[in-house]
Amino acid sequence: MPEFRQNMVSKEWVIIATERAKRPDQFLQKKEEKKPLPHYSQDCPFCPGNESKTPPSLFSIEKNGAWSLRVVPNKFAALQSHLTTERRHEGRFLKADGFGIAEVVIETPIHNRTIATMELEEVRNTVTAYRERYISLSTTGKIDLITIFRNYGERAGTSLEHPHSQIIATPIVPPHVRNPLYQSQLAFDTFGDCIYCGMMEEERRQQTRVVEETNYFLVLCPFASRSPFETRIYPKIHRSSFASISNEELMELASVLQKTIKRLYIGLNDPDYNYVIRSAPTEDNDVKYHHWYLVIVPKLTTPAGFEIGTGIYINTTLPEECAEFLRGIAT
Amino acid sequence: MPEFRQNMVSKEWVIIATERAKRPDQFLQKKEEKKPLPHYSQDCPFCPGNESKTPPSLFSIEKNGAWSLRVVPNKFAALQSHLTTERRHEGRFLKADGFGIAEVVIETPIHNRTIATMELEEVRNTVTAYRERYISLSTTGKIDLITIFRNYGERAGTSLEHPHSQIIATPIVPPHVRNPLYQSQLAFDTFGDCIYCGMMEEERRQQTRVVEETNYFLVLCPFASRSPFETRIYPKIHRSSFASISNEELMELASVLQKTIKRLYIGLNDPDYNYVIRSAPTEDNDVKYHHWYLVIVPKLTTPAGFEIGTGIYINTTLPEECAEFLRGIAT
Repeated sequence: MPEFRQNMVSKEWVIIATERAKRPDQFLQKKEEKKPLPHYSQDCPFCPGNESKTPPSLFSIEKNGAWSLRVVPNKFAALQSHLTTERRHEGRFLKADGFGIAEVVIETPIHNRTIATMELEEVRNTVTAYRERYISLSTTGKIDLITIFRNYGERAGTSLEHPHSQIIATPIVPPHVRNPLYQSQLAFDTFGDCIYCGMMEEERRQQTRVVEETNYFLVLCPFASRSPFETRIYPKIHRSSFASISNEELMELASVLQKTIKRLYIGLNDPDYNYVIRSAPTEDNDVKYHHWYLVIVPKLTTPAGFEIGTGIYINTTLPEECAEFLRGIAT
Repeated sequence: MPEFRQNMVSKEWVIIATERAKRPDQFLQKKEEKKPLPHYSQDCPFCPGNESKTPPSLFSIEKNGAWSLRVVPNKFAALQSHLTTERRHEGRFLKADGFGIAEVVIETPIHNRTIATMELEEVRNTVTAYRERYISLSTTGKIDLITIFRNYGERAGTSLEHPHSQIIATPIVPPHVRNPLYQSQLAFDTFGDCIYCGMMEEERRQQTRVVEETNYFLVLCPFASRSPFETRIYPKIHRSSFASISNEELMELASVLQKTIKRLYIGLNDPDYNYVIRSAPTEDNDVKYHHWYLVIVPKLTTPAGFEIGTGIYINTTLPEECAEFLRGIAT
């Protein structure tokens, strides 16, 4: 029997369409679709030796006299840092210059690695860079929201092979971010606690959607997953902003993130995916009602007209089965 | 210079990223990607002679003793019509049985036609079926929202080749639909008129994004287009619900819709697309603050991590250039 499920925070609904349900292993990606990449690519702007093809580093981690990770301004940025944030009318419409800061995290010098196949140290470097740049950008001024994300593979919207993440800082908090904040605020005013902490308590009680629990993190396929294998990593200690993550948590995040991506990599044969860190707007760094988390969305299905019209996603897998499948993958 | 633009109704923002802008003709689809389809396919459940492979018709249009169009229940429906609408808690989570009605509009008996290549009569039949089923479903009870949409091509999420649209009726009005309704209500309470009517007035004044204006419809690429060639068809006469469309308007809609899709078909070489009719919830059939419209979203780009995180779409084309390009296509 199909069912509607509501996302506790955003209040959006999904349809879990069990009648045309697919078994998790039906999402296995075809091997021939992935061509092996070289260790080094001469034309790649992110490979060592080609540093002059990118702007100078904003942050880097070095080892034995060479860089292990670099953060550079995005040369093809959608937003620019020299503009104003003033909003103005064009007739009845509202617009603003495209002020913003866009950076690229070059996660490793090695062209053909990815989160699943990196040394743990490289993943640690990556999340360390996330935190350093997040903190630095949040003190820049004019910045209200910092989004850290990783697009992996063509279906996830990237054409650059070299392992990298992106950071975009904007002077705007859009409704897509604000609406869940209103809802979690309202829940806090009603129940007196963080709705995310309550959700985690419930997930821990039900257990069926939990993929893994570590000292500091809970990994789960959410109750109202919008698509197959949507997976989230929540910090168990209440923190509204990613900026507040401790060193110990950060190091554990690296291994939990790698292990989770590895489960997808092994279980589904290296699917394309996006992941995003959803953190509070910079001015809400320390609020009781928001809770940062990382969401991984493997690109296995195509949202279509119904999703565009209603925002109700039709998901043809049970999150409970996805979690069970992922739990069973030996990493 | 890149710019932020706000959708007047939803208040969501887009980034028009002119620095990495593409010219409209760079979205031309490759010919070899489209294999020609047969006029008739023996295995197709929607082709004549295979009527037993679908449930009996709910509505049909006949000509010379054969059907020209059929509407049938969706055999692989994500929702089912025999369930209840009761909502209940599972711990802290909210869920409901998957009650709903899902139908398929088989637009023509001819396997290899599409909106752009149909006889005008076939498009007229299609929009007539939309209205008939919309009205019929809205009196069914337990139905709060009716979504009519067409997924065309694999990138738009369909694997069935035979020309068809879908209708899904749900007992739920999700935030994705409700939030813009709140906004347009608020605008009505403030300014005393329909925000969509005001937007059309502004677009008509500025003219740069107007693709076509007919007696009853305004076709435009919206100011805050989320993706290249997003195109909308708005009725000029204020009507909150698609159910209220007059016969004369309906016949004009058929030709305007066909002409608009033809512009995309010729100009971009038959791109995949979704279109959706956004109509008011059934109980708001006659409100002053909502205005139905049809939105066409060609599938030319891939939303990625930033879009997932913020709802801010990065659009690499100017809507003004898309409108100019579409105006220039001889249909």
